[in-house]
Amino acid sequence: MGKPLASIISVGISKFGKRVGLSARELFQEAFMECMDSIPKFSPDMIGALFVGQMSGMFEHQEHNAPIYLEWCGLDGGVDGVRVEAACASSGVALKLGVMAIASGLYDFVLVGGVEKMTHLDTVTVTDILATASDSFLEQVNGLTFPALYALMATAHMNRYGTTVEQMGLVAVKNHSNANLNPKAHMYGVEVDLDRVLSSRVIAWPLKLYDCSLISDGAACLILAKPDLAYKYSDDVVHVVGFGQGHDSIGLYARDSLTSLRATRIAAKKAYDMAGVKPSDIDIAEVHDCFTIAEIIAYEDLGFCNPGEGGKLVERGETFRDGSIPVNTSGGLKAKGHPVGATGVAQACEIYLQLTGKAGARQVQDVKVGLTHNVGGSGATAVVHIYVRG
Amino acid sequence: MGKPLASIISVGISKFGKRVGLSARELFQEAFMECMDSIPKFSPDMIGALFVGQMSGMFEHQEHNAPIYLEWCGLDGGVDGVRVEAACASSGVALKLGVMAIASGLYDFVLVGGVEKMTHLDTVTVTDILATASDSFLEQVNGLTFPALYALMATAHMNRYGTTVEQMGLVAVKNHSNANLNPKAHMYGVEVDLDRVLSSRVIAWPLKLYDCSLISDGAACLILAKPDLAYKYSDDVVHVVGFGQGHDSIGLYARDSLTSLRATRIAAKKAYDMAGVKPSDIDIAEVHDCFTIAEIIAYEDLGFCNPGEGGKLVERGETFRDGSIPVNTSGGLKAKGHPVGATGVAQACEIYLQLTGKAGARQVQDVKVGLTHNVGGSGATAVVHIYVRG
Repeated sequence: MGKPLASIISVGISKFGKRVGLSARELFQEAFMECMDSIPKFSPDMIGALFVGQMSGMFEHQEHNAPIYLEWCGLDGGVDGVRVEAACASSGVALKLGVMAIASGLYDFVLVGGVEKMTHLDTVTVTDILATASDSFLEQVNGLTFPALYALMATAHMNRYGTTVEQMGLVAVKNHSNANLNPKAHMYGVEVDLDRVLSSRVIAWPLKLYDCSLISDGAACLILAKPDLAYKYSDDVVHVVGFGQGHDSIGLYARDSLTSLRATRIAAKKAYDMAGVKPSDIDIAEVHDCFTIAEIIAYEDLGFCNPGEGGKLVERGETFRDGSIPVNTSGGLKAKGHPVGATGVAQACEIYLQLTGKAGARQVQDVKVGLTHNVGGSGATAVVHIYVRG
Repeated sequence: MGKPLASIISVGISKFGKRVGLSARELFQEAFMECMDSIPKFSPDMIGALFVGQMSGMFEHQEHNAPIYLEWCGLDGGVDGVRVEAACASSGVALKLGVMAIASGLYDFVLVGGVEKMTHLDTVTVTDILATASDSFLEQVNGLTFPALYALMATAHMNRYGTTVEQMGLVAVKNHSNANLNPKAHMYGVEVDLDRVLSSRVIAWPLKLYDCSLISDGAACLILAKPDLAYKYSDDVVHVVGFGQGHDSIGLYARDSLTSLRATRIAAKKAYDMAGVKPSDIDIAEVHDCFTIAEIIAYEDLGFCNPGEGGKLVERGETFRDGSIPVNTSGGLKAKGHPVGATGVAQACEIYLQLTGKAGARQVQDVKVGLTHNVGGSGATAVVHIYVRG
C-alpha cells in the first residue's frame, strides 16, 4: 500500500436537488459550514488554498468564481483560490490538485470543493450548456447532446458484448435504492424498480429517462491535511494514497473504441500503481454513472471485471450494497444527483463517510479501501483516486 | 535572491489581433509550435502536464478545453491537462500552478499556456461575457461593465491624488509606442499620440477609447523545466524565483479602497518575500493595464512609487523604455492586445524575451530582474511573478 499523500479530515455536502432561490455561492457555503462543523478544533484561518471545480459560467452568468467562495466562506484574501474546469470532472481534477498541493509540502491544509447551480434554467438551455463539454466543431453542431453520445456507446457495447437494456436498468434500480438511504440525494424518497426504468420514455435509444443522471443543484467540499497533522484535528481520517488522470480526444469520433474509455484506463493504472493496490483490493467505489451504460463501462475500465462483463457484474448483484464491490452507495450521479462541478468531490465525500463508518443507513460494513472515478464529457478527461481508512 | 523554483526554457506567442477564421485551439497550436521551434533538443513527449488559462466557454461555446489543446498539440492522453479560470488572471494562476508543480518535484517539464478567441463575436456580446468576471448579483445587473468599474477607480484616484487624464493618456501613448516595435501586437503599426488619446470618444468617463485595452484573439505558452534540467535543452533560460497570489471581494462595492487593489498588494508582498527582492530591484515589468488607470494603480501597489504618485511616474517618463523601470514593453494589454485567458502567460513571455535579449527592436538593455502582474476582473484576483535571467 502506498503512503498517505494527503488526508481528508472532514467533508461537507449540501442537500442535492432543486434548490430554488439559492445560488452556487450559497450552496458552497452550506457545504463548507457542514464541513467545519465536525472539526471544532480546526480553524478556517489554517486553510492555505482553495481548489474548486465548477463547469460553466453560463449557468449563473458568473465566471471568476474562486474569490467568491473565499469571500462567502469568510476566508482571507491571502488564501490562494483556484477554479478548475474539466466539465463533469472539474472537481475530480480540483481534488487531484489539492492532493498534489499537500503532497508537495507547499500547504498544510487546503479546501477542495465543487459546485454547480443548474435547475433554475430550462432543460433545453441546460442541455445546451452541458454540450459545451463535447466538441463544438463536430459534435455540438450536429446535435450530439450527451444522451446521444452515451447512446452511441451503449449500442456499441450491446452489439459487441451482448449487454442488455435490463442490465443497464439494474444500474438505475441499484443507485435509486441507495439514494433512498441518503437524505442528501436528489431522488431521496423516490422508489424505482426495473419495470419503471424499462417503461420510462426513450431519451436517446437505448437510453431511457431512468438511464440518465439528473440536472441538480449542489455543492460538496472537504478539508485535506498533511497526513502528520490530520489526527490533531479529526478522529475520522481517510488517506488519499493514489491518484491518476487521463485524457482522450474531445470527440467520440476520434477514439479507438466506443466501448471503453482510454482516459479511465490511463487514470486507473496511474492511481493503482501509485497506491500499490489492485482492482480486487477495492472494497467500495463511486464511479461516474452519468448514464447507466457509463457505470457498466467503468466497471470494466477500472478492472472490477473483464471487458464486456460489466452488465453481468451488476446482474449478479456484485455492485449492490451487499455485493462483493458495492458501487455508488451514495446513489451516484443517477439518483444522488449530478450538479456537474460538485460531482468529483461529492464522490470523495461518500467514500470518506463509508470508510469512517459515518454513512448512516447506507453504511457498508468492513470497508477499508475505496475508489472514486470522475469523468469529463464523453471521456476526454478521467480522474481516479484511491483512499484508505486512516 | 531566492532560489530558482522553475525555469522557462522557451516561449511561444501567436500573433495577437483579429484572427479571422481561427479558433482557440488553432491559436494555441500556433503558440505551441513556436515554443517548440526554439528548443530542438526538447521533445514534446517529455511534457508531464499542461496548465492552461482560459476565461470563458461562452466565447466559443466550448468548455472542457484542456484535453482539446493536448490533442491539437499532439500530446498523449497520459499528460495531465488542467484548465484554470480566474477571469483575466486565468493564465497567471495557471503559471503559478505550473511553477508549483515543478517546484514540488512532481514533474520535470510542464507546458503552461493561455488562450482566448473573442473577435468573432460582436462587442456587446463580448462585453457581456467579460462582465461575468464581476459580481452577477450587484454589479452585472446594474450595468456595471468593466469600463464603468475602472472609471469608478479612475475618478476616485483623480479625486484623492489629483491624477489627470493626461497622465492616464501617457500610459496609452507609451504602450502603443512599445507595441509598434512588437510585430505580434494587435495594434502594431498604429501611431497614437496624446492628442489622439484625449480626443477619442468617451467610453465611461474619464476613460476614453484609447484608455481601454483591446478585444483580441491570441494564445501564449511556455515550457517550465526543473532548474537543474533547463540548460540541457535551452541556452536561454529564465528562472522564476517568486510568486504570489491575492484576492479581494468580487464586488468593487465591498472593498476597503477604490484607489488600490488589495489583491495586488498581497500578491506582490508574497512574491517579493519569496524572491528576496525589493521593488527597486525590478528592472522591467509587465503589468495589467486593462485600462490606463489600472497601470497607474499597479505602479503604486507593486511599490514602484508611493501611493498616489503613479500618474507622476509615467509623466516623468520613468516607465517608458528608456526610463528607470520600463513597463509593458510588449505594448501591454492596451496595445499588444488582451485575449483575456492568454494575458498572464503572454506577460511572462515578454519578460523571458527581454531577460534573454531576444526582444528585438523593443529590447531594453541590461535587464536582469523582471516582474509580471496579472489581475482578474476589477481585482478580486491578482498574481505576481518575479524572474531572473538564468
